[in-house]
Amino acid sequence: MNDVTLRVIGTVRNGRTTLDDLGWGAVESMITVKPEFVAALTGLETFSHVWVVFFMNVDPLEEAPAVIRRPRGRDDMPMVGVFAQRGRMRPNPVGITAAEIVRLETGCVVVRGLDAISGTPVLDLKPYVPDFDRRRATVPEWMDRLMEGYFSES
Amino acid sequence: MNDVTLRVIGTVRNGRTTLDDLGWGAVESMITVKPEFVAALTGLETFSHVWVVFFMNVDPLEEAPAVIRRPRGRDDMPMVGVFAQRGRMRPNPVGITAAEIVRLETGCVVVRGLDAISGTPVLDLKPYVPDFDRRRATVPEWMDRLMEGYFSES
Repeated sequence: MNDVTLRVIGTVRNGRTTLDDLGWGAVESMITVKPEFVAALTGLETFSHVWVVFFMNVDPLEEAPAVIRRPRGRDDMPMVGVFAQRGRMRPNPVGITAAEIVRLETGCVVVRGLDAISGTPVLDLKPYVPDFDRRRATVPEWMDRLMEGYFSES
Repeated sequence: MNDVTLRVIGTVRNGRTTLDDLGWGAVESMITVKPEFVAALTGLETFSHVWVVFFMNVDPLEEAPAVIRRPRGRDDMPMVGVFAQRGRMRPNPVGITAAEIVRLETGCVVVRGLDAISGTPVLDLKPYVPDFDRRRATVPEWMDRLMEGYFSES
């Protein structure tokens, strides 16, 4: 199998139009789902967080992603593979973000902290379940340096 | 936009051939990536956990997923929307699992705890980064009941 085709189930709506690396923590987004999926949101408001699986818009003028590169092009970062990074430019530009659920409305869920611009196609929504998703994980030291300021600059 | 096409970047190899709901915690899987992505794994071994984004194999004899249903068909579960559940049968059968990294080999990563059968197509690998992924999230009481025994039966 070489390719898979997925359906767009909804769309992100917010005031953001540029793909900044930082400053998403406080952004509220409305995710509207297609009419046939309105009932599929039932009960989502009983969870505090939702995984948003989305197709990241990529500027067609940007270069194809290198399989190995320095995170954010920073000289103080090591050369690491694209599967060891969280950046947007990857073989499949699919993002997964655990966003806070603000409220549910008919046909849409309002979330906080989704790092996706307005118009981003959404592929799936899944409730955040700590037993599955909350891991005691460790990262290399460069990732700690990369994350500095990530949430404070929102 | 109605559809998006994604590339298969690798394949799961393990001894599991049936889609059981339980018992995946101890399963070791080898994720082999296509030759053009071997370098993309560089540095992944410096993380403890990896998100495996995969295309879930669905039995073609199974019914199309209802948008609202009782989790695992259990009578003691409420009727909830498919986007408020983690089950396999969903509009896009895409799984996201935070698996433990056991070791890296050339062209493949060995992980523990991936709930995917042998042959499952893989769409992306991302390092688990607690600052993004480790959330203090709450779930409704039925999810706690659904999770009982999930990890102990592996």
